Amino acid sequence: MAANARFFAGIGPQHLATLLAGSGAALAEGSPADAGARAFTGVAALAEAGPDEISYLEAARHNSALAGSRSGAVVLRAEDAGLIPAGCLAIISTAPALTFSHIAKLFHPTPTGSGQRHSLAAIAATAQVARDADIGAFAVVGEGAEIGSGCILHPHAVVGPGVVLGEGCVIHSHASVSHAVLGRAVVLHPGARIGQEGFGFTPTADGRFITMPQLGSVVLGDEVEIGANACVDRGALGDTVIGRGTRVDNLVQIGHNVQTGQGCVLVAQVGISGSTILEDRVQMAGQAAVVGHVRIGAGARIGAQAGVINHVPAGADYLGSPAQPARQELREIAAVRRLVPRSKPAVAAKPVAEEKGS
Amino acid sequence: MAANARFFAGIGPQHLATLLAGSGAALAEGSPADAGARAFTGVAALAEAGPDEISYLEAARHNSALAGSRSGAVVLRAEDAGLIPAGCLAIISTAPALTFSHIAKLFHPTPTGSGQRHSLAAIAATAQVARDADIGAFAVVGEGAEIGSGCILHPHAVVGPGVVLGEGCVIHSHASVSHAVLGRAVVLHPGARIGQEGFGFTPTADGRFITMPQLGSVVLGDEVEIGANACVDRGALGDTVIGRGTRVDNLVQIGHNVQTGQGCVLVAQVGISGSTILEDRVQMAGQAAVVGHVRIGAGARIGAQAGVINHVPAGADYLGSPAQPARQELREIAAVRRLVPRSKPAVAAKPVAEEKGS
Amino acid sequence: MAANARFFAGIGPQHLATLLAGSGAALAEGSPADAGARAFTGVAALAEAGPDEISYLEAARHNSALAGSRSGAVVLRAEDAGLIPAGCLAIISTAPALTFSHIAKLFHPTPTGSGQRHSLAAIAATAQVARDADIGAFAVVGEGAEIGSGCILHPHAVVGPGVVLGEGCVIHSHASVSHAVLGRAVVLHPGARIGQEGFGFTPTADGRFITMPQLGSVVLGDEVEIGANACVDRGALGDTVIGRGTRVDNLVQIGHNVQTGQGCVLVAQVGISGSTILEDRVQMAGQAAVVGHVRIGAGARIGAQAGVINHVPAGADYLGSPAQPARQELREIAAVRRLVPRSKPAVAAKPVAEEKGS
Repeated sequence: MAANARFFAGIGPQHLATLLAGSGAALAEGSPADAGARAFTGVAALAEAGPDEISYLEAARHNSALAGSRSGAVVLRAEDAGLIPAGCLAIISTAPALTFSHIAKLFHPTPTGSGQRHSLAAIAATAQVARDADIGAFAVVGEGAEIGSGCILHPHAVVGPGVVLGEGCVIHSHASVSHAVLGRAVVLHPGARIGQEGFGFTPTADGRFITMPQLGSVVLGDEVEIGANACVDRGALGDTVIGRGTRVDNLVQIGHNVQTGQGCVLVAQVGISGSTILEDRVQMAGQAAVVGHVRIGAGARIGAQAGVINHVPAGADYLGSPAQPARQELREIAAVRRLVPRSKPAVAAKPVAEEKGS
Repeated sequence: MAANARFFAGIGPQHLATLLAGSGAALAEGSPADAGARAFTGVAALAEAGPDEISYLEAARHNSALAGSRSGAVVLRAEDAGLIPAGCLAIISTAPALTFSHIAKLFHPTPTGSGQRHSLAAIAATAQVARDADIGAFAVVGEGAEIGSGCILHPHAVVGPGVVLGEGCVIHSHASVSHAVLGRAVVLHPGARIGQEGFGFTPTADGRFITMPQLGSVVLGDEVEIGANACVDRGALGDTVIGRGTRVDNLVQIGHNVQTGQGCVLVAQVGISGSTILEDRVQMAGQAAVVGHVRIGAGARIGAQAGVINHVPAGADYLGSPAQPARQELREIAAVRRLVPRSKPAVAAKPVAEEKGS
Repeated sequence: MAANARFFAGIGPQHLATLLAGSGAALAEGSPADAGARAFTGVAALAEAGPDEISYLEAARHNSALAGSRSGAVVLRAEDAGLIPAGCLAIISTAPALTFSHIAKLFHPTPTGSGQRHSLAAIAATAQVARDADIGAFAVVGEGAEIGSGCILHPHAVVGPGVVLGEGCVIHSHASVSHAVLGRAVVLHPGARIGQEGFGFTPTADGRFITMPQLGSVVLGDEVEIGANACVDRGALGDTVIGRGTRVDNLVQIGHNVQTGQGCVLVAQVGISGSTILEDRVQMAGQAAVVGHVRIGAGARIGAQAGVINHVPAGADYLGSPAQPARQELREIAAVRRLVPRSKPAVAAKPVAEEKGS
């Protein structure tokens, strides 16, 4: 299925030569000499693309879709080029999904600000808004805030006093950001909450809680993206920092004074408690969580729903709640399974006594 | 306790005959001949209702509340009618909660649009808004959007360009919807996020992430409800589809290209990863999650906090993380419990050796 | 690091004598006689404070930071005063974090309303707004709502018809509150959702769901705080009640008719199902959840990611999913670990047979 024209106007048909030049890819050897002159209308999934559309094949396990595809051209690896159906053009890439992304963006360029100002926006007198930034309906820009070149504030975006947005940031509807400095090309998806007070308070002698003033801020590196309705609290003293290029999915919670390195991936509904440090390229799968004040080493991968309660070495795979090295967790799951005779005779459990000797 | 008049004005006292006719229920045999002429002021819980109010009894385990109830009339099953206190009327129903819902709605009709337009709404020139739709303060309706008859956009609702709302949809405060087509009578609760970009990106050779353009949309079937601050991402290529009548609770995450059947129930904080398919009437309890690209069969029930990592057969009950058939999970929990002697002598564990033989 | 002046203007340098008087603390015996006349500029973390700043030391395990601190004064316990570096003043407190909070607030007083009204707010004609309440840009105050003295409605706050806010409440950006009565000094953080319809519906004979009218409201006690994007549904019949001083973190879900006592602490992403009761001072760690219709006794502590499926006695510590007393859960975890030989010889598992005898 191609992009729904109702929502994605696109820029219209493109010559294949233009798309190849723009994406740095090339046709397979032996392709028709005039193929570059063919016009394509857009991109689509392999199983749904038509003869005027371009699709992609990331891995061999999609071959069945390839054989029956009506796609006019397919981005794929050189080793898969031989599988392409007759009449379909093979665009060769060592990273098909990446090349396909580039081609898709040629049809549907990422919007950038062009200086639109809705008459019903509230921009403070002391705010500095780049001439080419877009400010949507009912958006708010606080006193002293700085909005960089090419930024887009969608309707109902709220940018608090003093907040700095680097060039090309996009603040979607209903997102709010306060007490924060954003780098270049940061994206806040709808309803994202950046910079609010962290969860810090102290009990009094008579059992009440007194908020500890949360006097830090949030620093979001270049190209960071924060998902819909996700939350990043500002630091208590010092900052909460999200490293360059880190991607945060919807409904993730990031507590005060958390620091992440570059290129981390935090899947939906992850929770990170205060003052924990994630080094570069840490990946946490959906609903995983980590306690406060620990460090997860570079490149570590934390499984879905895992609960990390201590430091994690670099490069480790962790699973379970409480989390432990994946290998150990999987062996424990298997051991527990062996405690219970399976109901189906076909998979009869080995005698427990025998397992003990292993 | 009756509905708080501060928030629920209601339409005032009603004759019982009107309520019975409107709900399709009937009084128990032997009720006073003039009971239909009695006026009732509203509904309330069994334990708190007064003589001018109507309550209900779903099941026998509530009998103790029935015996002491001061309610003027109670909706209950025929087999429970004999338990009703003296002076209280018995309204007979095979589905008391359903009948009670109908009666409650007669007192408090579901609001529908009547053509109110707040002067501080931002309605694009090319949007098509039904004459009888309500548009609240600071609501936004984008270019080319279509708002059906009787819709209500509460204050701060944001409906993006091209979005289609069928008849009678209700968009609550701060909800946003983009790249989506909604059927009839869809309800988006406050802060719900529909149609934003999914979590799709590709690593580059130098370790950056490039967003894969998310060119699909969201289709919400008739009578779908999406809870407060819940998120439904649009498809990457092709659509994210929520089937007719499916109910999604607060803070649920639904990834791109997920498809649910009709009548599914997703309780609060559930997470569904991309491209997973739920067939009709699947139920997922609170905080349950499922990985991407799997299929959960019709009528399957997934327990609270379960983590589904593979296909689930139709009608199955699954528990645990990783999830497995409930029967197996419960047996494993029991087996693990037997590994540890209980601290209280009264519940002394059976010798482990003995368990092994079972 | 001191508070970022970009976001926290503060009130400027203060004499130590003023800070001590305002916080009820005192210098250690033997401090210089003229110390009270020294001016301080603000507060900072122990490791980052400079000679004009005040920091604190809660516990002895922070001693290493104390030894190297350049802080001009440190709030600490009497028993730690001897560890203070030369030239640094010791402010004695039995509760250092609490005293530090008081001092921080003297530098950065909690804002209170002063009667600001943005010209682009939508305040209903019948609303009663205290003269000294602040109403931000695009805020909405519904018909019949009451806004108490000193309240602050940040931009895009939505207060529904009939809602009551006690004195000194703060409604942050994009928070919405309907069908609710708030006590004094309640704080709703950005995107919090209070009072929307709960998840209540009844199946019909033909498989559809009919919403059961949700006719209750929400009552938030004095000093309650609700985190960013957290949700509190209104009662179905009767109210959802959050007791005085209870702190609710981001992305927490509280279902209809839940009741919490005073001083509960619900950490991020906790989920509480309908009609469950938490007595006073219950603490639930991150991502913990509890089923509906149970009671958690006063002072009970529920561990992170725990899943409570039954009543919990007062004062109990519970862990695991399904949750059980922490001692039992920890012993089971240990028992399962012993089922699997460790891969590292250095931590060789004890023979399983031996364990059985314990």
